[in-house]
Amino acid sequence: MSSSSPLLTELIDALRCLPGVGRKSAQRMAMHLLERDRPGGHRLSAVLEQAMLRIGNCSQCRNFSEDPVCALCASHARDRRVLCVVESPSDLAAIEQATGYNGQYFVLLGRLSPLDGTGPEELGLDRLVGRLQEGEIEEMIIATNPTVEGEATAHYVGKLAAAAGIRATGLAHGVPLGGELEYVDRNTLAHAFGGRQSVE
Amino acid sequence: MSSSSPLLTELIDALRCLPGVGRKSAQRMAMHLLERDRPGGHRLSAVLEQAMLRIGNCSQCRNFSEDPVCALCASHARDRRVLCVVESPSDLAAIEQATGYNGQYFVLLGRLSPLDGTGPEELGLDRLVGRLQEGEIEEMIIATNPTVEGEATAHYVGKLAAAAGIRATGLAHGVPLGGELEYVDRNTLAHAFGGRQSVE
Repeated sequence: MSSSSPLLTELIDALRCLPGVGRKSAQRMAMHLLERDRPGGHRLSAVLEQAMLRIGNCSQCRNFSEDPVCALCASHARDRRVLCVVESPSDLAAIEQATGYNGQYFVLLGRLSPLDGTGPEELGLDRLVGRLQEGEIEEMIIATNPTVEGEATAHYVGKLAAAAGIRATGLAHGVPLGGELEYVDRNTLAHAFGGRQSVE
Repeated sequence: MSSSSPLLTELIDALRCLPGVGRKSAQRMAMHLLERDRPGGHRLSAVLEQAMLRIGNCSQCRNFSEDPVCALCASHARDRRVLCVVESPSDLAAIEQATGYNGQYFVLLGRLSPLDGTGPEELGLDRLVGRLQEGEIEEMIIATNPTVEGEATAHYVGKLAAAAGIRATGLAHGVPLGGELEYVDRNTLAHAFGGRQSVE
């Protein structure tokens, strides 16, 4: 292959920048586009270029947006008294898709990780403090990931809320739906057992 | 997500033209490029556009090539007395990567399939006959896929070789290496049993 078309080799190589795409998948993708979907390839190229150039971060919530203020922050239909803090735009997307949440967001674009050099400045926490002090927010929902670094970040962010006199809440931990107790990890099960609730 | 950035939604949608990429994977790919690899995204966009525009088919072997005659056909190092017939450029790539084959190729870009309207013209068989009649080729290796349509195509192509007085060979069928007899399908096992060879 490599010897027959340098441009094809280059395309296969370029496709490998996508996560989870190795040499074989990249080859399959390149062949598919060339054999069966050239219009799709042209469209992907054009949209990709536009997205890489124009998508930045919303100046208020730091979510991805091609406008200075994203649609979620600009919307008058969203409740401005609740603010949900998440680590990444993917987490924001997951919450938007799964829940009926109608408040606003703040995206940290990372988590506290001193070893990697990620401190409060990198997470835009000064901007978060600014929003908390505006006095509009009544509840802050901390929805960082349930990992060690995520929990540390949640702890830090929670203290910021406390300092501003704002009620902070976190996601409930427990047994996930649709699983089997036998296969739930020990910590989660202990947490779910300790936090048992009365059945109505 | 959809409400926060229309351009991001469009990118996720455009990525779904890639084979094996659903909504979730497309979202992950878009997020990855935006968060961590914008240079890779720019490069992919540029290479993709060039590839879709410039890659056509070699006028001799019909393999993908951005030049009128591909590097394999133009090469003086390849043996012009052997011609390997394959269904697709992916098959050509597989043979190039796995074997030490040093002859030339002819890519059918499909297989005989009357129900889908794929006849001898679509497979460029007139061009193949032309090459066979040039008198340079001594052996034609038919490496179509071992499927019903592939076998039918092989049969048809084999008759063309016979008509031109050229020896035609096919890939050996049998038990694949590294498998267990217990799990080899019945037809393959019967074929391998019937075609048993003396052990040296």
